Amino acid sequence: MSTLSIEGALERLLLPEPGLAYLRHDRAGELRLEPGSLACADGLIVALEDDVAAEVRIDASGCAVVPGFVDAHTHLPFAGWRAEEYEQKLRGVPYEEIARGGGGIASSARAFAEATDEQVLAQARALAAELLRHGTTTFECKSGYALSIEGERRQLGLAAALGREVDQATRVTALVAHAVPPGTTAAAWLDEVEAALPELLAAAPVTALDAFVESVAFSNDDLRRVGGWARAAGVALRAHVEQLATHRSVPVALELGARSVDHLACLHPDDVAPLAASECAAVLLPGAELLGAEQTAPARALADAGAICVLATDLNPGTSPISSLPLIIGLAARRYGWTAKEAFLAVTLNAAWLLDLPDRGALEPGRRADLLLLDGPIAHTPYRLGRNPVEVVVVGGAVRHVRPGSEWRLQGSHA
Amino acid sequence: MSTLSIEGALERLLLPEPGLAYLRHDRAGELRLEPGSLACADGLIVALEDDVAAEVRIDASGCAVVPGFVDAHTHLPFAGWRAEEYEQKLRGVPYEEIARGGGGIASSARAFAEATDEQVLAQARALAAELLRHGTTTFECKSGYALSIEGERRQLGLAAALGREVDQATRVTALVAHAVPPGTTAAAWLDEVEAALPELLAAAPVTALDAFVESVAFSNDDLRRVGGWARAAGVALRAHVEQLATHRSVPVALELGARSVDHLACLHPDDVAPLAASECAAVLLPGAELLGAEQTAPARALADAGAICVLATDLNPGTSPISSLPLIIGLAARRYGWTAKEAFLAVTLNAAWLLDLPDRGALEPGRRADLLLLDGPIAHTPYRLGRNPVEVVVVGGAVRHVRPGSEWRLQGSHA
Repeated sequence: MSTLSIEGALERLLLPEPGLAYLRHDRAGELRLEPGSLACADGLIVALEDDVAAEVRIDASGCAVVPGFVDAHTHLPFAGWRAEEYEQKLRGVPYEEIARGGGGIASSARAFAEATDEQVLAQARALAAELLRHGTTTFECKSGYALSIEGERRQLGLAAALGREVDQATRVTALVAHAVPPGTTAAAWLDEVEAALPELLAAAPVTALDAFVESVAFSNDDLRRVGGWARAAGVALRAHVEQLATHRSVPVALELGARSVDHLACLHPDDVAPLAASECAAVLLPGAELLGAEQTAPARALADAGAICVLATDLNPGTSPISSLPLIIGLAARRYGWTAKEAFLAVTLNAAWLLDLPDRGALEPGRRADLLLLDGPIAHTPYRLGRNPVEVVVVGGAVRHVRPGSEWRLQGSHA
Repeated sequence: MSTLSIEGALERLLLPEPGLAYLRHDRAGELRLEPGSLACADGLIVALEDDVAAEVRIDASGCAVVPGFVDAHTHLPFAGWRAEEYEQKLRGVPYEEIARGGGGIASSARAFAEATDEQVLAQARALAAELLRHGTTTFECKSGYALSIEGERRQLGLAAALGREVDQATRVTALVAHAVPPGTTAAAWLDEVEAALPELLAAAPVTALDAFVESVAFSNDDLRRVGGWARAAGVALRAHVEQLATHRSVPVALELGARSVDHLACLHPDDVAPLAASECAAVLLPGAELLGAEQTAPARALADAGAICVLATDLNPGTSPISSLPLIIGLAARRYGWTAKEAFLAVTLNAAWLLDLPDRGALEPGRRADLLLLDGPIAHTPYRLGRNPVEVVVVGGAVRHVRPGSEWRLQGSHA
């Protein structure tokens, strides 16, 4: 039995009541910040106090202890970067034009096709390590950068391989409708996907299907088609919607029972209340908004209306090459007027619920011991923007990262 | 003779011609990015090639080598933080109201008065180490958080003490007109300052006087008074202007021969051309803009018009608790539409010129060996927002920071 205790924290971020699956954002203020300790055994949190006999003891003085971050929207694994396109965008070239000119997703698809498996994995591994240093203990991977059935299958396989290699837990989403492959149509591509779906779902432990609804991508009707497949396959439906323009995709997604709608920068005001009343997560991606000079999602209104809000990096080489959830927390404070508690809720409990991982996302006995020591109060994470506050990362009860200089906090043997 | 060589860099950021004191921003595109090496001896760069006999050899493969960052506008040393005020601002309370309610600068002044010298220095030392990890090899310190003559003298003395302790070089600015102390008037406070000026200038190696012109602070006429003292004392004049509203302080500052005007979020359009034509730096502080939800300075117009632009963190506990110049570079790209070269110019050569340190800010023989290895092309620094790209920091020819995991790049003995 391996045991760990975290002792004397300045703040522990605790649920207002035990056993919550998620917490609607109008209740975020009920999260409690209390000083104290935590004991873990065999990978689980076992008590909200210290265990004097623990094999590994961590001095958390001056630190906030929070659940490990869950990044519920990333496009890992991908190949290469698109920094040159970013400079184009800064000169004012719209994404639609970049996409039509062979840039955007198509350019990442070319890079993916040209890279070897090992090259893709090496890049993803390095990014997973970067995510870990910034506190991410679980992350989602998406396909969608291949634009061919064989390539999609390959990307899903690489996502699965990445999941076996990294310190974090991962979840795999098949983003089967990301961009229309050059030379074909949306309908023809979806016909191909439909025929290959069993093969795609077998290439990795896929837990969701995803589609991008946009003028340069797929339509609401295409989303209905993907939604039907998700229902039939027994996996969740997610959707990239209302990112660059308003297509009223949210009512469609809700009707399909989607687990999340992501982006929402151009969400129609009439869709705030139905989304907030539903059991569908509103995934906000302020990094993509900032870098793409997009509109600001009505995240304040969604939170006030009681939506299940989630924040994520959207880590991808085009619209959001961001690996740091602390930065995303800071951007959410600034762009959305969210409190620190609201932002932390959105990257812990609610993000874990979105990924259907009820065993994590909160500091309570019985949940997985995925947790972080931050080097100050949680209010400092949004306030001290662009700084990584993560000192120690514990994944499944094992210490997986210690910031250099913080080794003194650990006593005892650790993995 | 201590020697160091940096070998096989992917990119070196080089001046378009030798010996430049500054480069106006309409010429930033002429900065050259070339692969290659660098040799240093006795703290100076001696050649743009490697030296096979160097005592310390650094493998720069895959890296950009750039001059060490110069952060020309910080409010170090200060005491405590103001995270609770930040949440107030996010709820929409304007700075003027926070200031009138005893928050803002007055609250930092109370914290400063209550802290011991050692407490102030300990916090500043930790922040200097954080600056170093983010690539800052020279930084400016300001007074202005005391609001009493004795306190100002003390803060200047602590700034000098900090400069003697840290790995970086520092410059001290006496911000003699930051906020009007409670219970007095601007005129009465400036009378006190005038009487004590010799004593204040003796408390530290002060190289500039500074004033904050704003409705809650000082007027253009007060700025004229401070400008007169600066001229008489033979130190530079700097000014915080046009941050929250337009007061047409820039023509006043130019008439006074100011070395810089800082903030400029509300710069009057008619003042762009005269500022750009002058030998006065335009200091842009996009972190303060973002966190304060301020207007965006006309930095694109200033750069196009050929201003001497500088970027800085404005590191302070109120409006910009940001230590990372890489983040500031990214915000400048996003908010101002600046290229990576424009942003790097603004934190190297031009920032060094502003601080009257012609011995640094560029990779050329004869300049001080303050330099950084970044872990990818310079274009990735703005693009991969919120990530610290700094792998190795060299200050005055000595290796002062190596990112954990990058130790393999160094061969030979180093300090």
